[in-house]
Amino acid sequence: MQGRREMAKKQASKWVWPGMAMLILALVAWLPAQGSAVSHLKGEKVAKISQDDCFGCHAEVEQLHKDSKDAMLGCETCHSGTDKHLEDAANKPVTSLELSTCGGCHKDQYDSFYRVNFDAQARKEKGVPTGRSPYQDKLLAPHGFTKEHGEPRSHPFMVVDQFVVDRFARGRYQFKDMFGYTRPGKTWDVLVDNGPEKLYPPDVSAAAGNPVCLQCKTSDLVLKWKFLGDKDDKAKWDRTSDVNALIKDVHNPVGCIQCHDPHAAKPRIIRDALIEAVERDGTRPYDADKGAARVKVEVVSFRDGFRKIGLLDKPNSTLQCGQCHVEYNCNGGFEPVSGDKVTMADRRANHFPMKNALDLLAHYDQLKFRDFKHAVTGASLVKLQHPEMETYWGSVHDQAGVTCADCHMPKEKNQAGESFTSHEVVRPKDHVKVSCLGCHPKATAEEKLYQIYTIQNYTRGKMREAEVAIVNLIDTYAKAKEQGVAEETLAQARKHHERSHVLWEWWTAENSDGWHNPKLAQDSLFLAIIEANKGTQALTAAMTPAK
Amino acid sequence: MQGRREMAKKQASKWVWPGMAMLILALVAWLPAQGSAVSHLKGEKVAKISQDDCFGCHAEVEQLHKDSKDAMLGCETCHSGTDKHLEDAANKPVTSLELSTCGGCHKDQYDSFYRVNFDAQARKEKGVPTGRSPYQDKLLAPHGFTKEHGEPRSHPFMVVDQFVVDRFARGRYQFKDMFGYTRPGKTWDVLVDNGPEKLYPPDVSAAAGNPVCLQCKTSDLVLKWKFLGDKDDKAKWDRTSDVNALIKDVHNPVGCIQCHDPHAAKPRIIRDALIEAVERDGTRPYDADKGAARVKVEVVSFRDGFRKIGLLDKPNSTLQCGQCHVEYNCNGGFEPVSGDKVTMADRRANHFPMKNALDLLAHYDQLKFRDFKHAVTGASLVKLQHPEMETYWGSVHDQAGVTCADCHMPKEKNQAGESFTSHEVVRPKDHVKVSCLGCHPKATAEEKLYQIYTIQNYTRGKMREAEVAIVNLIDTYAKAKEQGVAEETLAQARKHHERSHVLWEWWTAENSDGWHNPKLAQDSLFLAIIEANKGTQALTAAMTPAK
Amino acid sequence: MQGRREMAKKQASKWVWPGMAMLILALVAWLPAQGSAVSHLKGEKVAKISQDDCFGCHAEVEQLHKDSKDAMLGCETCHSGTDKHLEDAANKPVTSLELSTCGGCHKDQYDSFYRVNFDAQARKEKGVPTGRSPYQDKLLAPHGFTKEHGEPRSHPFMVVDQFVVDRFARGRYQFKDMFGYTRPGKTWDVLVDNGPEKLYPPDVSAAAGNPVCLQCKTSDLVLKWKFLGDKDDKAKWDRTSDVNALIKDVHNPVGCIQCHDPHAAKPRIIRDALIEAVERDGTRPYDADKGAARVKVEVVSFRDGFRKIGLLDKPNSTLQCGQCHVEYNCNGGFEPVSGDKVTMADRRANHFPMKNALDLLAHYDQLKFRDFKHAVTGASLVKLQHPEMETYWGSVHDQAGVTCADCHMPKEKNQAGESFTSHEVVRPKDHVKVSCLGCHPKATAEEKLYQIYTIQNYTRGKMREAEVAIVNLIDTYAKAKEQGVAEETLAQARKHHERSHVLWEWWTAENSDGWHNPKLAQDSLFLAIIEANKGTQALTAAMTPAK
Repeated sequence: MQGRREMAKKQASKWVWPGMAMLILALVAWLPAQGSAVSHLKGEKVAKISQDDCFGCHAEVEQLHKDSKDAMLGCETCHSGTDKHLEDAANKPVTSLELSTCGGCHKDQYDSFYRVNFDAQARKEKGVPTGRSPYQDKLLAPHGFTKEHGEPRSHPFMVVDQFVVDRFARGRYQFKDMFGYTRPGKTWDVLVDNGPEKLYPPDVSAAAGNPVCLQCKTSDLVLKWKFLGDKDDKAKWDRTSDVNALIKDVHNPVGCIQCHDPHAAKPRIIRDALIEAVERDGTRPYDADKGAARVKVEVVSFRDGFRKIGLLDKPNSTLQCGQCHVEYNCNGGFEPVSGDKVTMADRRANHFPMKNALDLLAHYDQLKFRDFKHAVTGASLVKLQHPEMETYWGSVHDQAGVTCADCHMPKEKNQAGESFTSHEVVRPKDHVKVSCLGCHPKATAEEKLYQIYTIQNYTRGKMREAEVAIVNLIDTYAKAKEQGVAEETLAQARKHHERSHVLWEWWTAENSDGWHNPKLAQDSLFLAIIEANKGTQALTAAMTPAK
Repeated sequence: MQGRREMAKKQASKWVWPGMAMLILALVAWLPAQGSAVSHLKGEKVAKISQDDCFGCHAEVEQLHKDSKDAMLGCETCHSGTDKHLEDAANKPVTSLELSTCGGCHKDQYDSFYRVNFDAQARKEKGVPTGRSPYQDKLLAPHGFTKEHGEPRSHPFMVVDQFVVDRFARGRYQFKDMFGYTRPGKTWDVLVDNGPEKLYPPDVSAAAGNPVCLQCKTSDLVLKWKFLGDKDDKAKWDRTSDVNALIKDVHNPVGCIQCHDPHAAKPRIIRDALIEAVERDGTRPYDADKGAARVKVEVVSFRDGFRKIGLLDKPNSTLQCGQCHVEYNCNGGFEPVSGDKVTMADRRANHFPMKNALDLLAHYDQLKFRDFKHAVTGASLVKLQHPEMETYWGSVHDQAGVTCADCHMPKEKNQAGESFTSHEVVRPKDHVKVSCLGCHPKATAEEKLYQIYTIQNYTRGKMREAEVAIVNLIDTYAKAKEQGVAEETLAQARKHHERSHVLWEWWTAENSDGWHNPKLAQDSLFLAIIEANKGTQALTAAMTPAK
Repeated sequence: MQGRREMAKKQASKWVWPGMAMLILALVAWLPAQGSAVSHLKGEKVAKISQDDCFGCHAEVEQLHKDSKDAMLGCETCHSGTDKHLEDAANKPVTSLELSTCGGCHKDQYDSFYRVNFDAQARKEKGVPTGRSPYQDKLLAPHGFTKEHGEPRSHPFMVVDQFVVDRFARGRYQFKDMFGYTRPGKTWDVLVDNGPEKLYPPDVSAAAGNPVCLQCKTSDLVLKWKFLGDKDDKAKWDRTSDVNALIKDVHNPVGCIQCHDPHAAKPRIIRDALIEAVERDGTRPYDADKGAARVKVEVVSFRDGFRKIGLLDKPNSTLQCGQCHVEYNCNGGFEPVSGDKVTMADRRANHFPMKNALDLLAHYDQLKFRDFKHAVTGASLVKLQHPEMETYWGSVHDQAGVTCADCHMPKEKNQAGESFTSHEVVRPKDHVKVSCLGCHPKATAEEKLYQIYTIQNYTRGKMREAEVAIVNLIDTYAKAKEQGVAEETLAQARKHHERSHVLWEWWTAENSDGWHNPKLAQDSLFLAIIEANKGTQALTAAMTPAK
C-alpha cells in the first residue's frame, strides 16, 4: 500500500496544485476494495471508529476531509469493514459506490434524482412518422439503431433501458414485469437475464452493447476499469471484455461520484475519454483560452496512468454533463481510407472528439475512423451520439454564462422550505417557471414556451428537409449504380453522403431540436441539404445523356 | 305454434340442462313477431294483463320468468298487442327488440350505453402519416378499406358509422346533418338515403357492405335471420340478400339482447358464427380443456337448426364481446390454390376462425379462403378484422382471470350512489382509476397509464418496422417483375408476402396497440419482418448477377 | 389642390351615390402626405385647432365627419401639422396610418387585434409528416414554398413573418431576438436587415417576395400605390419596385383603414385586385344577383383611376376578409399555351379570380396564366393561396347568412362589462362557446368541437389520399419518361396533373381543413384523386406491353 501511495504521490506531483495530491491519495486508498459494493448502511450496526485511527495511516485524507462540510462523517460511513481492517490491515474494507450512501444525508438531491418524469414516455420509437426522426431507418441502415431507438427518459432508467433495448443484446435482458418501466431499482432486481439461448432474431435486433458504452451509463465500474479501458491486470474489465459478463457488475445508473468528489463533495469529472480530450484540447476548444477562464481542470494521473480524474476549481455543469452528453465514439469500426478494421482493442473505440457539427467529420478523418457503411450507398458514415455539450458551445445562452444545470437542474424547495438543486434533470419546457423565468423575470411561462417551440418547429422543418434530401441522394445512387454510372461519380456521391450525413444526424441525435444553438443547427442543416443535393446532382448528371 | 314448440323442445333436449328448455321456448315464442319492432312503450296506454293469462298457454316461460329479477314485469312490457292476442290468438303480438324497452328499468346501463366518448373522434382516418396505420393504403391496395378506414368510436354509432363509411355503399347513405355525428338515434332518423343514383365514383369509394357484416352491428335482425345466414323461407334476410334493402330493417346498434337473455337477464351469446366456432373448437381452443373451466356454453338449436343460441352458465365478457371483437370472415373471396370464387352463398362468407395471430393463415389455408389479391404482388391476402378476443387469450391479464368487462365496463355509481356496471364500454386509458386501480391498488393512475403507453409505444415501433419491411417487399417485387425475374421466385415472394401480411395486419386491425398481449404482438411482428425480409432477399438475389 | 379636387369630383360623380363624393374628397385630401406616418399622438403637444378652420377649405369632409360617431374628434387627431398648414397651406400635414391612432379611442378593438394566440405556434412547418401538408415538398417542387411554409398565426405578425420566411428574401431579414416571435411591434424595431451579402444559399431559400404580395400584409402603402400597382409618377411604389426598398416603408400589419373608412368608421374595401374582381363579377359571382342582396359596393375611382375604393352599404366581413383570404395571383409566371413569360409589369401579377375550387383552372386558362412548372412532370401548375372566401360561398353557414366575423370575431366584454367585437380574429375551435353556441344554444362546446374535428378528420383523410394519388402520378411519369413513352401520352398526363393539382392544393392552402365547406372539399378532392389516377393509368397503359 505504501509503495502504491508513493508512486501516486510522485505521479500526482507532476499535475496537481499544492494540497490536491491528498485527494488523489484518498482515491487510491479505495482501489484495493474492488468488490461489488452494494451494502446499504442504514440500519446496520456500524462500529464507532475514530477518524483519527484512520488518519493515522491515511494522513492524506485528513485535511481534505476535515475542511469539507462532511467532516463530521466517520470513515465507516462509506468504507465498511474498517473495524476489521483496523484489527488486521489485510482485511480490506469495502467502498460503497451506492447513491444511497450519499443520499442518506443529501436526501433532497437523492430523492429528486430518482424522481420519474412520467411525461417522457418509455420505448417511444424515434423512427416512425410521428417520431423525432421519421426517416432514420432508411438513413441509418443497417446500423443497430434501426432495430430500436427510443426517445430518452428519466436518468434513473439509463442502465436498464440500455440493457433491454433490442439493439443491445438481442433481447436477452428484459424487465421482469411492467413495474420495471415505472419504478427505478437495482438493475438485477428489475431485469431478468433470459440467457444466450433465447435471443431475438437478427432481422429485428442487434448485439451492439459493449464495455465502453457502459461508461456513460453507470459509475459502478470506476474502481475496476483502467483509463480508457485499456487491458491491465489490475482492471477487472476492459474494452474487450465480454459485455454480458461485465453488466452483472452494474447495479446503478451514473451516480453522485461521477460529478462529486466523495471526500469533499467538490466538483469533478471522471469519464476517461473526456479527460483525454481535455488534456488534448482544453475544456472549450473553440475559446481562445481553451476554456481556462471558465473552469480549471487539474488532470490527475495515478498508479502509472491506471486512472485519471479531473478536479474542477468550481462547478461547471456544461463540462460535468459533458461526461456523457457529447458525441463520442464507443465502439469499433473501420478506417475510412484503408478500410482496415478498428477493433475494441484500439483506443479509438473510446474517444471524445469535442468538435462541433461543422468540424466533426474532419476530426474523424484525422482520427481515421468511421462507424459503419450505409446499406445502399456504402458511404463511410459516422453514427452520432448526443452532442449536447458541443452544440451548446457558443450559443447565446452559453455566451451569457448559463450552464446546463441552470436550466436542467433548477433550484427547488423541500417540504421544510429549504432550497436545493434538483437532481431530477428536468426538461425545461415542463418547468419553464423555474428553468427560464429566474433569468427572464419579465417574460411569462407561456411566452418562453412559445419561443422554445418556435425554434424547435423551425429546426424540425429543416431536419425533415435534410432527411428528404439524403433520401433522394440514396435513391438516386441506387438507380445510378443500376445503370452502371462510373465508380468515380459514385465515389463522389458517397463523399457528399458522408458529409451530409454528419451535418444532419447531429441534430436528430442531439436532444434539443435546435434550441441549444439555433444558428448552428440552421447552418449545419443547410449544409447537409446542399451536400446531399450536390451528390444527387452529380449522379443525375451522369445518368442523363448529354444534349 | 304448438308443433313448433314441440320440435323446439325435442331439439333442445339434446343440449340443455334441466329447466333451460323453457328459455328456448320463450325465444321461439317470439318468432312469429317478425315485424320491425320499434314501439316505445313509455307513455303508451298499456292494457293491464295478468301474467297468468299468458302462462296459461306459455307455461315454459313461467318458472324462468318468476325466478328472475324481472318477475314483476308483465308480459306486455316487451310484447305489445297481447291484449288483442288474448282476445284472438291469430292477432300476433309484436316483440320489442328496442334497447329502450330494457332501458326503462335498467336506466343506468341504458344511459351509459348511449353515452358518447367525445375523446374518440369520428372519421379519423387510420391511413395517414399521423394515423394508426400510416402505410395501409399501399399495403391493403386495392381493398375497400383503403377508401375510408376510420378509427373506432363509441358503440351507439356502430350502425350509422358503418353505413356512411365510403367503402360501404359508395356514399349512398349520409348523416342528415352534423348532429348525426354527436347524437345517437334511430338509424333512419339520423341518416338519409340518397338513392342508387348519387353514388361516389369507384376511385374513391367501394360497395363492400353485405348482410353478414351487419350481424356485428345490430341485434335487430335476430328474428329474421337463419343460423349463419342460410337461405330459408322463414328468414326474411340471408347472406345473399340485397344489403341496401336489408339495412332499412336496421334501427339500432347491437343491443341488450345480444348478451342478455331477455326473460331472465342472464348471459348468452347469439352471434351465429361464434356459436359454430364454439361447437367446433370450444370457447378457448388453446386451453387444454377448451375453456370448459371458464364458462359453459350450452348451444341450443331449434326449429331444425333455424337458429342457435349459446346459454352461458355465468357471465363471461371475453366470450360475449367475442361475438364481434374477433377476426371473422364476413364477405366472399376466393380459394387460394384453385382460385375459385367463394360467393356470399357459401357459408365461408360467415366464419369465425378462433385462432391467434400465429395460426390464422394455416386455418384459412385449411378453410381454403382468402379475401383479396394485392394490387402489386398479387399475393392472396387475408383482410383482418379486430381480433381482440383471440389476441387476449393467454395474456398475463387473461391468465389472471380478468375479462373484457373488468377493464372496459368498470363499475360506477349513479346519482343515488348505487353501483352499476357501465355499459359505455370505455377505453381504459381514459378511466385508469376505475379500470386498473381496483386490481392494482398500490399503483397510481399516472403510473398505469405510463405502462400502457410503454407497451403501445414499443408495439407501434414494431408495427411501423413491419410495414416498412412489407413496403420494401412490394417495391422489390414490382422491380423484379419488371426485370423478368422467374415466376418461381415471384411465387416464393408472394408466399412470404401472404405470411408477413397476416402477422402484421393483425396488429393494426386489433385495437389495443399491443396492450392486450404484448408478447404475442412482439412475436408476431418479429415474424412479419422476417417473412417480409425473406421475400425481399429472394427477389434481390434473383435480380443480382452472380459474382 | 383645387384642380385635383375638381378632377376627383368629376370622376366620382360617375360612380357614387349623393353625398359619398365627400368621402372620396377626404381621401384625396390625404394624398399629399405621402411620408411615412408613424407619429404617436399621445403625449405630444397638439395645437387646439377648430374643425371649422379645416372645414372652411375641406367642406367635403364636414357633413361626413359631423354625422359620424367620431364627430367630436379634431382633425389634428389624424392629421398632424395642421397648425402649420393653417399658417401656410404649403406646409402639408402628415396623415397617420397608425393603428394606434384609431386605437386611442377604440382601445378594446385595438388591444384585441394585438393579442397573441400562443396556441398557434410560429414557424410550424407544414411539409413534414406531422404537418398539415406532409407531401407538399414533392408536390410543389421546385416552388419557393418548399423552402419554408409555416402554418399561420396571429394577425399582428403577418408582416414580420412574411419578411423572415426563408422563401421571401433568402433570409436577409431576421428577428433581432426571440422576443420578436412573441411581442408584436413596428417592423423595424423587431427585425434586422442583414443586407444583401448575408443571404441563405439557393438550395434552402428563395427570393420570392415582391411588391404585390405586400398588399395583403400591410395597409401602410395605401397612399403610395396606384390601383393594381401600375407604374405612375404619383406612386412611390409599383409592381416592379425593388421589394427590398419597398419594405422599409412597411411598419405595420394590415390595419384599421383596410376595412373601416377613417372619417366615418364605416365599412369599406381597399384591396385593388378585389375591387377589380367585384367590378368584373360582383361580390358573389355564384349568386344569381351577383351578391346584390347581400352587400352593395360602390366602387369609387378618383384621380383618373389612380386609386379605387369600395364603399359598403353595410358591414360584410366575408367581403372585407376577402381582401386577403382568397386565392389570388401575386407574382409573375407564364402563359400555359404559348409559354411566354408574364412579368411583374403585367397586371396579371395582381389578380383575384373569385372562382371556387372546381372552376379555378378554367379561369386561369382564360387568363392565360400559370405560376410554375412541376420539377418532375413539367406540368403547368397554379400555386394556390388561401381561398377562404371562395370556399365559404354556398356552404351551409353561408346560406344561413353567417359571415366570417360571426365566428372569427366574436363579441366579448371588456373589464367595464361593455360588449365589443374582438379584433383578435380567433380560431373558433379555441373559442367554441362564443363562436358557435350563440347560434347553437342547445349544443355544448364539446359537441361542436367534435363536429368540427369530424369534418376536418374526414377532409384530411381525403387530402392525404389525393396527395398519394398525385405522388403516384409523378413517380409513374418519371418512369414513363425514362422508358421513352410518347410525348403525346406524357402531355396527357401533364394535363391530368394540372387539374388534379388545383383540386387538391386548394384544400391544403385553405385554412379550415374542410370545415368552411365540407361538401365542396369532398367533391374537389374526389375529383383530384380521379384526375391523378387517370394520368397514372394513361402512363401505365403506355408502359405495359399489349397482350
